[in-house]
Amino acid sequence: MSHEFCSTRLKKVQASPIRKLVPFALEAKKQGVHVYHLNIGDPDVKTPEVMIDVLRQWEKNPIGYDHSKGNAAFIDALIGYYHKLGFGYLKPADIQVATGGSEAISMAFFATCEAGDEVIVFEPFYTNYNGYATVNDVKLVPILTKIENGFHLPAREEIEKKITPKTRAILYCNPNNPTGTVYTKEEIEMLVDIAKKYNLFLMSDEVYREYAYDGRKQISLLHYMPQLPKQLIVLDSLSKRYSLCGARLGVLISLNSDIMEGILRIGQARLSSGLVDQAIGAALKDVPDSYFAEVHKEYETRRDVLFEGLKKVPGIVIPRPEGAFYSIVKLPVKDSEHFAQWLLTDFRDNNETVMVAPAGGFYAQPDLGKHEVRIAYVLNAKDLKRSIEIIEKALAVYPQKI
Amino acid sequence: MSHEFCSTRLKKVQASPIRKLVPFALEAKKQGVHVYHLNIGDPDVKTPEVMIDVLRQWEKNPIGYDHSKGNAAFIDALIGYYHKLGFGYLKPADIQVATGGSEAISMAFFATCEAGDEVIVFEPFYTNYNGYATVNDVKLVPILTKIENGFHLPAREEIEKKITPKTRAILYCNPNNPTGTVYTKEEIEMLVDIAKKYNLFLMSDEVYREYAYDGRKQISLLHYMPQLPKQLIVLDSLSKRYSLCGARLGVLISLNSDIMEGILRIGQARLSSGLVDQAIGAALKDVPDSYFAEVHKEYETRRDVLFEGLKKVPGIVIPRPEGAFYSIVKLPVKDSEHFAQWLLTDFRDNNETVMVAPAGGFYAQPDLGKHEVRIAYVLNAKDLKRSIEIIEKALAVYPQKI
Repeated sequence: MSHEFCSTRLKKVQASPIRKLVPFALEAKKQGVHVYHLNIGDPDVKTPEVMIDVLRQWEKNPIGYDHSKGNAAFIDALIGYYHKLGFGYLKPADIQVATGGSEAISMAFFATCEAGDEVIVFEPFYTNYNGYATVNDVKLVPILTKIENGFHLPAREEIEKKITPKTRAILYCNPNNPTGTVYTKEEIEMLVDIAKKYNLFLMSDEVYREYAYDGRKQISLLHYMPQLPKQLIVLDSLSKRYSLCGARLGVLISLNSDIMEGILRIGQARLSSGLVDQAIGAALKDVPDSYFAEVHKEYETRRDVLFEGLKKVPGIVIPRPEGAFYSIVKLPVKDSEHFAQWLLTDFRDNNETVMVAPAGGFYAQPDLGKHEVRIAYVLNAKDLKRSIEIIEKALAVYPQKI
Repeated sequence: MSHEFCSTRLKKVQASPIRKLVPFALEAKKQGVHVYHLNIGDPDVKTPEVMIDVLRQWEKNPIGYDHSKGNAAFIDALIGYYHKLGFGYLKPADIQVATGGSEAISMAFFATCEAGDEVIVFEPFYTNYNGYATVNDVKLVPILTKIENGFHLPAREEIEKKITPKTRAILYCNPNNPTGTVYTKEEIEMLVDIAKKYNLFLMSDEVYREYAYDGRKQISLLHYMPQLPKQLIVLDSLSKRYSLCGARLGVLISLNSDIMEGILRIGQARLSSGLVDQAIGAALKDVPDSYFAEVHKEYETRRDVLFEGLKKVPGIVIPRPEGAFYSIVKLPVKDSEHFAQWLLTDFRDNNETVMVAPAGGFYAQPDLGKHEVRIAYVLNAKDLKRSIEIIEKALAVYPQKI
């Protein structure tokens, strides 16, 4: 009797296009090569000192479980944050703390969809949605957005024609990872209206809420939640807001009590999110406004450096990023995955190279994104300038150009 | 058009029998009542100081992502721990760090089973297996173990007759939560042999490895892993070993590269486990052996206090717990869930009461465990003695006795 010792569904989980080239990066580093990481949204901006102080002043022992719903002081701090944004209607009952935004998205898929149901996403989309979809047996139905109009949403009829009896939700990310697009009020209201008309859930991933540039303001789905209380879900995380990617602090917000009670039961099965990370999170109430102002300015500067630098490189197409800290950039290469790997294995300039994420993994449809990469502008201006210089030099000698 | 705004699978996720009475406990506390928590395995034993020192001496800023597989120093420390136990064959590639033992179990279900597949468990079993099973669309098939023989495994034929074409795995917990049973070498070898004969996965939850009493030694499934490398999986956690329940540090061990590579891809989708928690975990290499010796002695003393105390209470049946820090105790009550709730809402002795977990939720078959509760002996001897006194006094006046 021959047997496969691995489920077929496990085989379907995709390797992260952000992380799968890591072994090549590690190999380059072993050879003493400096690698500039533009592949992952892991900022070099400092975590606020008041948060680090929580660790330095740690007294609690033992480090026991916290509540499955989340640490009470952390939830209070979150409520304060959302009230300050203008969403005074939010109560602790509307908030579930998740172990990272990742868990929040995964919980949302499970809570809204039956196995086999469909969720509409706009591609290119945050690649890890694929992983959560596979684990929760949800089918992502991609709707294409295009580099030539800055990856803004297509016309309403393009979206409506993808809705089937299996469609349960629309999921979008605003400001967008990987495109940097900040959706307009009209775009958000169109999605709310579609959700209403077709009885769909509408889920907004707002991890990059604060990062909108050129005077733009992100339009949060929280504005519309009281109008459509059962159908709107906001997914959030502290990772990017406070440079806390390694503290697994996600948030799921909904006014739908069936959803919230059910998700709490999932939360009970996994007991609690981290006690220490949540204590760090609770200190968000002590983070001065000046922290955000500085971080915002820093990222806007980086955006400028990236955009101004790359648009001058022959053959590169880059829309002006409106928010977040990513850009989908078109390169004059036959296969961006090969190019990204070649940067790590073959190309060195003064013993330095750059790591970028091939964009193919951000698209669901095959062959899309083949000439694009996602660049995370999470490095300081000096390192970013040097990275652009390396990309330009690399393209000049890369053999498989178009 | 009427619509349910919640998936049916979410509704199937059970409320934790350990945690669902929490609102009643909170209400009692609001009234100024002291509640002794015997409901949850959240020890009052101190976390090792060398681990707390990691927080106090924290320097890293920002708190960025770690590797999806796990923090390198933490994995090294784990390898050192397993080698010291005698499993020198284990390499870093055989280890996946999980965000709590919970995530490790959930990953194992997904990796070994197709949707709808069956996993055999021995009931009463760790109740949260239900949650992970529902989330991963796995059916738990319970095989009854009995209080009269200390919840040891039934005869081989009892197990074999539950195996169907849908069976993919057997999952057991050793030392056992909730029964306190430590399985013998013969029992473990019987399970390994069944796994071999029927091409099943065998998964051992060894979170309580160190807690075996009266000179017993836990027999780890790691002894057998090289014999059946594709089929054996060990699930582990630092929560109970170092009083680190609130640091979400789980471990999944397998020599099956398809499983390990697939699980790493799930790990990539959720990016990484907590950086700070893993730094705490890496300090396990500095925990002196004396810490375990003291903790072991402390729990054995507590076990004695609980067992000697409860066996004298009229109408109570308690097998002598062999390991872990739980006991399934039979009470002379009609419905243990009602009794547990009544303790919180109605009974006070000198303004104190006790919280226990009704055992029904640890059984899959309806009505089993109706007269039993799970007691976690995670409090110091003085508090435990007082808790036993409260239970005895409560039973004396509880109206719904049998």
